[in-house]
Amino acid sequence: MIEKDRDFLEAYLQDRKKLVEEALRSYLMPPEDNLAEIYKAVHYSVFAGGKRIRPILCLAAVDAVGGNLAPAMPVACALEMIHTYSLIHDDLPAMDNDDLRRGKPTSHKVFGEGMAILAGDALLTEAFVLLSRSGKVRLPAERRLNVIQEIAYAAGIFGMVGGQALDILSEQVPPDENILSDIHRRKTGALIAASLKAGAVISDATKNKTAALFKYGNNIGMAFQIADDILNVTGDRELMGKDTGSDAKRGKITYPSVLGMEQAKEKLKYHVNEAIASISGFDERARPLRIVARYIEERKE
Amino acid sequence: MIEKDRDFLEAYLQDRKKLVEEALRSYLMPPEDNLAEIYKAVHYSVFAGGKRIRPILCLAAVDAVGGNLAPAMPVACALEMIHTYSLIHDDLPAMDNDDLRRGKPTSHKVFGEGMAILAGDALLTEAFVLLSRSGKVRLPAERRLNVIQEIAYAAGIFGMVGGQALDILSEQVPPDENILSDIHRRKTGALIAASLKAGAVISDATKNKTAALFKYGNNIGMAFQIADDILNVTGDRELMGKDTGSDAKRGKITYPSVLGMEQAKEKLKYHVNEAIASISGFDERARPLRIVARYIEERKE
Repeated sequence: MIEKDRDFLEAYLQDRKKLVEEALRSYLMPPEDNLAEIYKAVHYSVFAGGKRIRPILCLAAVDAVGGNLAPAMPVACALEMIHTYSLIHDDLPAMDNDDLRRGKPTSHKVFGEGMAILAGDALLTEAFVLLSRSGKVRLPAERRLNVIQEIAYAAGIFGMVGGQALDILSEQVPPDENILSDIHRRKTGALIAASLKAGAVISDATKNKTAALFKYGNNIGMAFQIADDILNVTGDRELMGKDTGSDAKRGKITYPSVLGMEQAKEKLKYHVNEAIASISGFDERARPLRIVARYIEERKE
Repeated sequence: MIEKDRDFLEAYLQDRKKLVEEALRSYLMPPEDNLAEIYKAVHYSVFAGGKRIRPILCLAAVDAVGGNLAPAMPVACALEMIHTYSLIHDDLPAMDNDDLRRGKPTSHKVFGEGMAILAGDALLTEAFVLLSRSGKVRLPAERRLNVIQEIAYAAGIFGMVGGQALDILSEQVPPDENILSDIHRRKTGALIAASLKAGAVISDATKNKTAALFKYGNNIGMAFQIADDILNVTGDRELMGKDTGSDAKRGKITYPSVLGMEQAKEKLKYHVNEAIASISGFDERARPLRIVARYIEERKE
């Protein structure tokens, strides 16, 4: 990535992350006194230092079609809340049994398993409260319903939940590239693709542009997961905030373990190029999406 | 309850249960092959013999204001899916650690903890897929959004999830009637009240009728929970499909343990009467709601 792009991207990501985190804080309002504990658990995981990739991509899709950011903010935050719920539940002892996430003890380590399950349930449910309420910014009800449907579908059995179920069961079957990409298409790809599509739907983009952004999202989602798998082997423990090599220790199937490192890197490059190609018809306002794609190819954390 | 009412109620409940279960089957469609396992877990709990109280109350509210049942069916089923998710998660070892539910082994006993957590996550999420999609019956988008918001709010931190969190934490504090009713208002009352309100909103009922049905729902929800607590002490293990006396063994605070059995029964009667009084302005079409309230007072299972 050239230096000019890197500077632009750093400033862009920082600015958007700040916007998203301010909005998250305003939506996750301090509760009544007796709900302090569950609220603490929710807050702990939401503000544990995520990169906010899904909300940033949603907002970047709005930018790419010349839309208005304000009505997209609750949607962007709901995406992050759903993502955070999935991390809390995936880390549980009955799932991946992870003690560390982003360098901090995982939710069940701090609050106990029962409270961690509930913190996840709370975030998933409150995401739909946020998506369905009108708030300050009016958005036509039809469009809001479309967004809810896209996101719920991507988070449900045919997306994230199904992907995690396949992931659990995959430990019992021989590694296979088809199974692996099916898991990740559901587990990571679906919600990322929905983030882009939601940005397009909110902004009332044309059918063609919406489809192009969805395709970008599917490819960027796969790229993101492959990069994650590669970093789990080659990454720096300090930068990552979690143990590297943990996938291998656990016998988890990953792109490097199924395809070998060289082919995994090829596949990463392929999806990044496909993503960028799918938005070739967009003007300069899609610059962040193009640079983010390159960044995923080169990411170190 | 007089015999005529009992016969009417039995036929009514049976008929509505059948309608709801047919609809649930059609909404929980057989999935792609590789999702069979998570689908099996979802199916297992949804068709484990529930009484379908929430969907039946939602449909009865539609009847009470002379509405149309068709657009209410997906909403009724979504309520049952959310209720089922909450049972699966509540039964987990990290929560209430129950091995039996309705006379059958609980989800985590059959499918393992990871899959049970995911089955709950799936049901909660798919409920919102169902609520947001238009399906065959058109409903104005604004009304549909209102329904989603009511249900999400009732299921979230300020309702069910918050109630369960307080329930877990209540084991560490001295028993107190205020804490107890706060827990149940959230944990059971909120979703039942939302079931009634959803029926009213779908049918575009007047503000007064909607408020009256919501009040009915709040009272019937409390009555239902108090009856549950009483039955846990006095109930027949065979009829209940679970161990009686389990609350006491676990040191759980319940209405009989906090108020004593006589006062608990008084409180039950109070809420049943309040529920019936709140819909005194309704005509004969509210008969099922009136009889259901009496049935809850006298229930044996």
